Amino acid sequence: MPGVEVRVWARRAEAVEEVRRMLPGVIASTDIATVMQGVSLAVLCMPIQHMPGIARQIAACELADDLIVTDVGSVKGGVVGELEDIFMSTHGAFLGSHPMAGSQHTGLAHARGDLFHQAACIVTPTAHTKPQHLARLRTFWVKLGCRIQEMTPQQHDHCVARISHLPHTLAVVTTLAALRQDARVLDSSAGGFRDTTRVAGGDPEMWAGILMQNRTEVIAALEDASSAVRELLEMLRSMDEEALRRFLAQAKALRDLLPAV
Amino acid sequence: MPGVEVRVWARRAEAVEEVRRMLPGVIASTDIATVMQGVSLAVLCMPIQHMPGIARQIAACELADDLIVTDVGSVKGGVVGELEDIFMSTHGAFLGSHPMAGSQHTGLAHARGDLFHQAACIVTPTAHTKPQHLARLRTFWVKLGCRIQEMTPQQHDHCVARISHLPHTLAVVTTLAALRQDARVLDSSAGGFRDTTRVAGGDPEMWAGILMQNRTEVIAALEDASSAVRELLEMLRSMDEEALRRFLAQAKALRDLLPAV
Repeated sequence: MPGVEVRVWARRAEAVEEVRRMLPGVIASTDIATVMQGVSLAVLCMPIQHMPGIARQIAACELADDLIVTDVGSVKGGVVGELEDIFMSTHGAFLGSHPMAGSQHTGLAHARGDLFHQAACIVTPTAHTKPQHLARLRTFWVKLGCRIQEMTPQQHDHCVARISHLPHTLAVVTTLAALRQDARVLDSSAGGFRDTTRVAGGDPEMWAGILMQNRTEVIAALEDASSAVRELLEMLRSMDEEALRRFLAQAKALRDLLPAV
Repeated sequence: MPGVEVRVWARRAEAVEEVRRMLPGVIASTDIATVMQGVSLAVLCMPIQHMPGIARQIAACELADDLIVTDVGSVKGGVVGELEDIFMSTHGAFLGSHPMAGSQHTGLAHARGDLFHQAACIVTPTAHTKPQHLARLRTFWVKLGCRIQEMTPQQHDHCVARISHLPHTLAVVTTLAALRQDARVLDSSAGGFRDTTRVAGGDPEMWAGILMQNRTEVIAALEDASSAVRELLEMLRSMDEEALRRFLAQAKALRDLLPAV
């Protein structure tokens, strides 16, 4: 965007080198104080469990008066309150974001200019959020192409448990139940298996953190999935084809609510 | 293909009309005897439960000496034996096929010339199969672009339960567990939910038939999925992040065996 200066902080020197090589116009450094100087919007992109530590390092820097710190983390309950507190005594303020975009891949090599185009971006203001901060953050994501949704951190965690963390865990379960015994069945696979399990190729380290952080909501969603599996098993065992047809038709009606791309 | 005459039999007159409109070079009719006259390869494309009835109608027609009847059904155990028996006393012979291709859509409007390109096609010869019939059937599918795999009907049913029927049922379970309580979470969905649940948009009538026909293998696969869900729930409840990471890494290693498209 014209008039916008982008800077990147990274922990590892090799990551900074990669940014400098691939994005020559961008200032990149491992020194957080240098990068934060005069910055008006900082986006935390790292595993959730590391956010409070980095946030404290940022809070100890000299910060611009109008600084908003946001994040792109997949869980909000707990972490939003903790980060809000960290910046409460500084010039800056924290406000949570979660753009619903990405893939099973990580790293700069998989960056795409249209990643956020038409993606939902959930922002999670609280009672402490200033309206002008919320307005600026919304503008930032809208300029990247997002549709904005506002939720409390708790509503966010419930929603993403159902629409993102549950599909992830069931893609993992599908992969294991299909292949753990004998992976040679993979030779006969088609688009159905490929799509249903795509996200199971995601980073285990990152996803273990996400699922553990949101475990209360993920457990509730997995328990619902578990009872749906039990319903299915019961229909198959009792050969109740009519009930099975209704069960499949209910899923189809819900899935068909999603507009075709 | 040059030198090949294609004919279509359909039960409904409107379906025949649609074929005539969209494929002017093709002979289409609701009269099975007319369509079968002099035909050397017939492909049964219909719900599995209707195959034996139609096969008996075909067996009652005047048939060419070299006729092979095959199918594209998703379950083989039971149906292959029954269809073999039906054609045993005729000039024709039955031999099962299952091209692993398609989508959640049905109908002529979704036909694609490259549907079978690089797809696996499982053929299921038995002790009764003549080698020259198997060779001709293989050639047919190879010319359409398929990679051939040979299995017994029983091996086929085990394999597709894992690689196709299980992903289908878990896509249905994911959809229901995500949306049954409150479908509004769909507004926040991204590519992960879209891909993981795509096949849940499939025809409930057709899939109820498939799952019921293959219920022994599908029940075994769903029980494995159910215990994987229980493992996951246990890790989340006991906050065993290390075990969760290993569980996710095992799924990733298996999913990464699938070559990128």
